[in-house]
Amino acid sequence: MALIVQKYGGTSVGSVARIKAVAEQVAALRAQGHGVAVVVSAMGDSTDRLVDLAREISPTPAPREYDALLATGEMVSIALVAMALEARGCPARSYNGLQLPVTTTDVHGKARIKSIDATRLQADIAAGVVPVLAGFQGRSPAGDVTTIGRGGSDTTAVALAVALHADECQILTDVDGVYTTDPRMVPSARRLDRVSFEEMLELAGQGSRVLHLRSVEFAAKYGVNLRVLSSFKPGPGTLIAKEDPNVEAPVVAGIAFNRDEAEINVTDVPDEPGVAWRILQPISAASIEIDMIVVNAPREGRVDFSFTVHRDDYARALELARAAGAQFAGAGVAGNQTVAKLAIVGSGMRTQAGVATRLFETLAREQINVRLVSTSEIKISVLVAERDLERGVRALHEAYGLSRAPA
Amino acid sequence: MALIVQKYGGTSVGSVARIKAVAEQVAALRAQGHGVAVVVSAMGDSTDRLVDLAREISPTPAPREYDALLATGEMVSIALVAMALEARGCPARSYNGLQLPVTTTDVHGKARIKSIDATRLQADIAAGVVPVLAGFQGRSPAGDVTTIGRGGSDTTAVALAVALHADECQILTDVDGVYTTDPRMVPSARRLDRVSFEEMLELAGQGSRVLHLRSVEFAAKYGVNLRVLSSFKPGPGTLIAKEDPNVEAPVVAGIAFNRDEAEINVTDVPDEPGVAWRILQPISAASIEIDMIVVNAPREGRVDFSFTVHRDDYARALELARAAGAQFAGAGVAGNQTVAKLAIVGSGMRTQAGVATRLFETLAREQINVRLVSTSEIKISVLVAERDLERGVRALHEAYGLSRAPA
Repeated sequence: MALIVQKYGGTSVGSVARIKAVAEQVAALRAQGHGVAVVVSAMGDSTDRLVDLAREISPTPAPREYDALLATGEMVSIALVAMALEARGCPARSYNGLQLPVTTTDVHGKARIKSIDATRLQADIAAGVVPVLAGFQGRSPAGDVTTIGRGGSDTTAVALAVALHADECQILTDVDGVYTTDPRMVPSARRLDRVSFEEMLELAGQGSRVLHLRSVEFAAKYGVNLRVLSSFKPGPGTLIAKEDPNVEAPVVAGIAFNRDEAEINVTDVPDEPGVAWRILQPISAASIEIDMIVVNAPREGRVDFSFTVHRDDYARALELARAAGAQFAGAGVAGNQTVAKLAIVGSGMRTQAGVATRLFETLAREQINVRLVSTSEIKISVLVAERDLERGVRALHEAYGLSRAPA
Repeated sequence: MALIVQKYGGTSVGSVARIKAVAEQVAALRAQGHGVAVVVSAMGDSTDRLVDLAREISPTPAPREYDALLATGEMVSIALVAMALEARGCPARSYNGLQLPVTTTDVHGKARIKSIDATRLQADIAAGVVPVLAGFQGRSPAGDVTTIGRGGSDTTAVALAVALHADECQILTDVDGVYTTDPRMVPSARRLDRVSFEEMLELAGQGSRVLHLRSVEFAAKYGVNLRVLSSFKPGPGTLIAKEDPNVEAPVVAGIAFNRDEAEINVTDVPDEPGVAWRILQPISAASIEIDMIVVNAPREGRVDFSFTVHRDDYARALELARAAGAQFAGAGVAGNQTVAKLAIVGSGMRTQAGVATRLFETLAREQINVRLVSTSEIKISVLVAERDLERGVRALHEAYGLSRAPA
């Protein structure tokens, strides 16, 4: 008998019919002899409706009250899921964030979970009762309602798995697992049976939005086995876990991409200490996040400087870069919004040579110009023209043999 | 500076516009230098929508989860009201039933408030902050969400006034006070400036549904001054308080009526000990509430026995009465659904003679047959044919001079 935490997202509990289907799945798992605890999100678009109500009251609603308002969405769904379980003879009890409590920091809208008091839940599970916990919310040390940011129910589920020492934390969603790349772009994309936390973080951070990033970090930190599953059709999903030392890691596990990038180039600046700081500091000071940063090797005492920002921040960042560039006689500032980033991700890169070579060979054969490159231990990211993105992802998916199941 | 608890019902917070209007009223009261705490109900028909959701899940939803679900309605409105107050520069904080907590018994759906921990609220008020408390809900000793029954927000407001030692508990609603009788029936009906708790209980219990009965009992028990006011138009409303010993109580304060009655007559039964019990016991055992009970004086060792029940219970009660009547040879059982009850209520009846005489004189003049009579210290109730009700109420309203303001 295993102890399993299951998290159902908003789509999975989006209607009465869906809630009944969730109850059926949970009851079936419990009938197999497993201990089950459930975390649920708010029904479908109910959070959006609450957000609209708040905006009608005030364009800048008081953060404490905004949290108290949004948290009601999950409170509705936990009661309905517990009701549906009880209605089919499976004992259940709902708990909102104030009740156990789920203790968080007191930063409204972006609180972090500090601990979950699992005493009542353990007693419930021991007695065959399924606890149904509200995701996304908690209680500040002062006793106020807090929320941990949108998508945060995944994090609640992982925190609950930690508190219960669960064997597995299953994230039930509208996709049936983590794929080698987005199947809408590459029809031969394949569901991965298993990825490591590090791979998942790189895949998620690069745009494969299956799981909330923070929940993966949290799971990695505490070594919680995560599994992404579809709540609509049966299947094994994808296990996200520590790297298995007995299994050779795939060289490339998947390909991530991101169309939200914009590139800024500050060219022909003096190669002196502090130059990078003088260019980037005003951008960071404006709370604009900088993603890739590349500086070429100096030539005659001058360097070129390139970086990327989110496309929404492009205009403001370009303006700030122009002001910074004006400090350096002869420097030029240019930008480009029609770029995209793609990245190959795989734990096997740590030990395998030739991975980068194949990347550049493949892109060259496709006549795709690589504008910027950045690398980490298990990832190589390249910036390309947006029109080349889809062709590049497909070619790389083929080149690394991702359409075929591993031997 | 007074400390005032204000309670706004569902109609008063039924829309964003209404919530903003409530915030304006509360802020105005606070700007006058008063300490203010607010209790709110769920927005308009939001509780009905939650009830519908629950019924879709199960015709008999688990009581614990049903309470957890319904309580979210008030949690939405307190956050919005507090937001609206903050938006207009009036510091405010919402509190749901779990937070203070509002401790109740653990009878789901019908819990009773045991205490309200007002520590945080007192600190808020001292700091110029308006606490906004969710009505209708609380926390059981085990930490579960409870509700205190529909209409229970009035009771929450009174309990809060007790906990805060407030000077007045104002119930803001869609009527501007307690009237001598229903103005829809008698256009000359007059708003009362003041009624005693006892009078209010008799008026409310007889059908003047302005306030939840339990809240009046609660206020009477703790001597809380209640005031019924309109949240839509300004005015002094009606103060419901202890009888003022310095003011002569009106002989008749108001006229209540009730169309939900049905009459059952068990005639010609032996005048023996235990007969009443044998007739009424099966009816009580079926959880049917009996209202008026009248037994006439025995004649030749036989008596007639009449009582009234709610019209919804009529068919079942008649059946039970027939079964009970069959025990007594020669007894007859009959019933009548087209009856109504009217009652004159007034603390002055205690000391004034001739009140009943005028009642019967007036009804006789109107050719209205009195079927049953029952009396209490401050009330005389009569059962009449339903077709005579309206004429009777109007004639009595005139006969006791209720259209004219007291001298």
